[in-house]
Amino acid sequence: MRKFVAERARNLITTRLSLSSSSAAPPRRHPVLPRFFTSAQPGPPPSDSMSPSADSPSPAVTLDTINPKVLKCEYAVRGEIVTLAQQLQQELLAKPGSHPFDEILYCNIGNPQSLAQQPITFFREVLALCDHPAILDRSETQGLFSADAIERAWQILDQIPGRATGAYSHSQGVKGLRDTIAAGIEARDGYPADPDDIFLTDGASPAVHMMMQLLIRSEKDGILCPIPQYPLYSASIALHGGTLVPYYLDEAAGWGLEPSELKRQLEAAKAKGISVRALVVINPGNPTGQVLSEDNQRDIVEFCKKERLVLLADEVYQENVYVPDKKFHSFKKISRSMGFGEKDISLVSFQSVSKGYYGECGKRGGYMEVTGFSPEIREQIYKVASVNLCSNISGQILASLVMNPPKVGDESYESYSAEKDDILSSLARRAKTLEDALNSLEGVTCNKAEGAMYLFPRLHFPEKAIKAAEAAKTAPDAFYARRLLDATGIVVVPGSGFGQVHGTWHFRCTILPQEDKIPAVVSRLTEFHKGFMDEFRD
Amino acid sequence: MRKFVAERARNLITTRLSLSSSSAAPPRRHPVLPRFFTSAQPGPPPSDSMSPSADSPSPAVTLDTINPKVLKCEYAVRGEIVTLAQQLQQELLAKPGSHPFDEILYCNIGNPQSLAQQPITFFREVLALCDHPAILDRSETQGLFSADAIERAWQILDQIPGRATGAYSHSQGVKGLRDTIAAGIEARDGYPADPDDIFLTDGASPAVHMMMQLLIRSEKDGILCPIPQYPLYSASIALHGGTLVPYYLDEAAGWGLEPSELKRQLEAAKAKGISVRALVVINPGNPTGQVLSEDNQRDIVEFCKKERLVLLADEVYQENVYVPDKKFHSFKKISRSMGFGEKDISLVSFQSVSKGYYGECGKRGGYMEVTGFSPEIREQIYKVASVNLCSNISGQILASLVMNPPKVGDESYESYSAEKDDILSSLARRAKTLEDALNSLEGVTCNKAEGAMYLFPRLHFPEKAIKAAEAAKTAPDAFYARRLLDATGIVVVPGSGFGQVHGTWHFRCTILPQEDKIPAVVSRLTEFHKGFMDEFRD
Repeated sequence: MRKFVAERARNLITTRLSLSSSSAAPPRRHPVLPRFFTSAQPGPPPSDSMSPSADSPSPAVTLDTINPKVLKCEYAVRGEIVTLAQQLQQELLAKPGSHPFDEILYCNIGNPQSLAQQPITFFREVLALCDHPAILDRSETQGLFSADAIERAWQILDQIPGRATGAYSHSQGVKGLRDTIAAGIEARDGYPADPDDIFLTDGASPAVHMMMQLLIRSEKDGILCPIPQYPLYSASIALHGGTLVPYYLDEAAGWGLEPSELKRQLEAAKAKGISVRALVVINPGNPTGQVLSEDNQRDIVEFCKKERLVLLADEVYQENVYVPDKKFHSFKKISRSMGFGEKDISLVSFQSVSKGYYGECGKRGGYMEVTGFSPEIREQIYKVASVNLCSNISGQILASLVMNPPKVGDESYESYSAEKDDILSSLARRAKTLEDALNSLEGVTCNKAEGAMYLFPRLHFPEKAIKAAEAAKTAPDAFYARRLLDATGIVVVPGSGFGQVHGTWHFRCTILPQEDKIPAVVSRLTEFHKGFMDEFRD
Repeated sequence: MRKFVAERARNLITTRLSLSSSSAAPPRRHPVLPRFFTSAQPGPPPSDSMSPSADSPSPAVTLDTINPKVLKCEYAVRGEIVTLAQQLQQELLAKPGSHPFDEILYCNIGNPQSLAQQPITFFREVLALCDHPAILDRSETQGLFSADAIERAWQILDQIPGRATGAYSHSQGVKGLRDTIAAGIEARDGYPADPDDIFLTDGASPAVHMMMQLLIRSEKDGILCPIPQYPLYSASIALHGGTLVPYYLDEAAGWGLEPSELKRQLEAAKAKGISVRALVVINPGNPTGQVLSEDNQRDIVEFCKKERLVLLADEVYQENVYVPDKKFHSFKKISRSMGFGEKDISLVSFQSVSKGYYGECGKRGGYMEVTGFSPEIREQIYKVASVNLCSNISGQILASLVMNPPKVGDESYESYSAEKDDILSSLARRAKTLEDALNSLEGVTCNKAEGAMYLFPRLHFPEKAIKAAEAAKTAPDAFYARRLLDATGIVVVPGSGFGQVHGTWHFRCTILPQEDKIPAVVSRLTEFHKGFMDEFRD
């Protein structure tokens, strides 16, 4: 608890500072300071337990002597509120009945299998067989595994030199698996994909870090990021010492993009001496859940091409689209359809096995497709990938499977399709139910859940609640999220962790609780919210 | 080929520069510049294929505009010679008989399973069952898997919340697996270990990066590293913008340490305004294969304690000791046995599933044990770990297995022991055979293969060979390694990739070729070497 309080006190110091000099004001409103634009303050002195002994005058490392970029970095998705939730969980375990709820419901992070989503059987069959190929020839295996999983395992093993799933692979990943992934991208987009453009990574996060490491030289290098954004981007930019240049999504237009906003923010950054290197786009949106219109996508491509920016396209939710009138289009497909090729635009697309209908977060598989860079730059990316040798082979195999699942006629096709459809249709229903429930609450407006795994409702607080948060030295949305956790065990992330327009308050909530628990979530949330509003109504 | 030539030309520019200002001269000799102390030169302009089109005046990214730290970073283990080897392999595939050998023998990297080492059956059984727990209850499974593997899989699943091997875990790794690892460390050392001190990582490399990221603020921060060193360290220090401060191991004393060397290099660095933050030690040694004496270990601990340096102990080869008179002792055990506790020394121990007798490189499992840091610093390490969410769960499970293998009485114990002993005794035989073969060559002296997976023989070249290398604009050891590859298909890494005393030349060669291939390796190497010496004898 001491630790939590210290952390909280430190965060509060940074909550009220004015806007970072690196971001221009959004249209008509003043953006509030997202916490990641600020410098963290050094924390309290070392506790007694760490006091140096008589002959040890000072510890080797203190908050004053570590890399200040590390101090500056924040990652709200696993921040303060989650630390507190873990503590409550321990208390519940040690003393059942000690809180007004039976369990902690983690809606802070897109982690489907932690909330009982089952893995796709075919994928797991293939992984198990590749982990222990010795059983492939055994007769019992035929009874335990589907025929096409056995066949696929053989195919994959044959793609791996020496069938050695325990060996480091090529630094970009096993060539044969990259062939499969490239073919999957081609089938998805209708445009060619090159296996040499694929870099397999342990989830999408290391790929994002790799690109930030390549692009950022100093705080004078800026990366355009949507606000609200997934805090991996702000964290990675902070760790690599660059400057986050925000562009604001328009909540009133379903978190769509006003193209002039990009130019405005770019110019504002330039005027401050920031050299903008890249633009991050997250589609479908995280935390905002929108699916960008094709027009918006073309605007972004055109802008990046014109301004010579690297387009970093976070497309990890490409399988998570829940509305019939929207469809996922990769930025590579959009740019190729506009006639732009390798020479016209530098584009990196990130994909992960953690999301989609598969939700295999624990496997840490993913890739980036890198196009439009010169051979010399590609060589540098390859070198950085080489320093970590390779990503984990199970994750590599899984990345190839999600880009090449069972096809019509395969033994597993029906069960695979049924599992996939069940998950996606359930996610769509859950998203709609939560969206409706949130919109029915007093003072809450919630975006349409078009895709991804999140809702990002806006909270219109009574003045009295804002004052109470002020008195508690916290932001109103953090105040609300903390109260919600204490009362219901539901963990959401305050909007300030993602960035939001000044004077607006939000939280991010996943749509992932099990479907049969959704009614209870809705009623707990509704009851809490009514009580909160009753308590603070002006 | 063009790419390779360009890279090579660029490297050559840096080969002959004088010693970095950050390193003091070693006793009696002048250290040569390891390539990673130098600034890389910008490469050739973008090739024609990437020339911007008329309306695209310049590419978004060029070698002049990327992070210069990335340019500076080098990683010889997967460098130039390996790129060339991969090319030869493709040529052999396309046109068998096109070279005077049938296959490329990769002795550049400690990747046992790529050279046909088989995984430990028990470990793979457990991994497969955890990947596909649905089969745990099936009767066929009893016939396919050992009873204790089934039992262990159940135990592990019960340690994972919701038995969800597809969920992100706690950012430090699954708590129950950390309990197991801590117990394994306790059993190994005879001193307590705390599961909260364990951070599970995707192999040891990301853990090393994490610590460098924490410690390095600018090029004024130095990290003491052994020379020769494993180039992960030089690469990571370069990527994070710090300065490598070398301390030279004494080849004449079996790559042991002269304690006064540490102090001398520290003072020399201080005199240059470098603030030394940490000391890296690799034991058993990479590339040098020595097992440090306990005296040397105590000297290092004493030195780090006195100078308030973080001790970064690379202990990934802890299971790889081949001589009866040496034993692995962890630095934590040594420091605790000296009476030093949490308050006295900041110590990080790195372990990996990639090495040992298991050699599971492709699984990317590992951990660091972090002791002697204040809660505030631990919080910062936790935050950085959180940004990447967690390491892959299969790797986490495997890390728990290698720290808690089958015990006497378990069904798998005998087969497990037999597999382990076979691998380790074969490695010991291979090491000895290669060591003897190298020592029998004219002008070659080779260290004793006490541990790890490498030999680092010294090459005493005739003057004529050195001149020929000069004429070819390359270093003599790189010249030799290239000739060796062209003639035999054997891939070794020139000593310059690891750092070496000026005027000495070495290469690193793994002891990993299959045992029945060792005679052929020896005869190919011997024949090549004789030819080389005959050609260049003065």
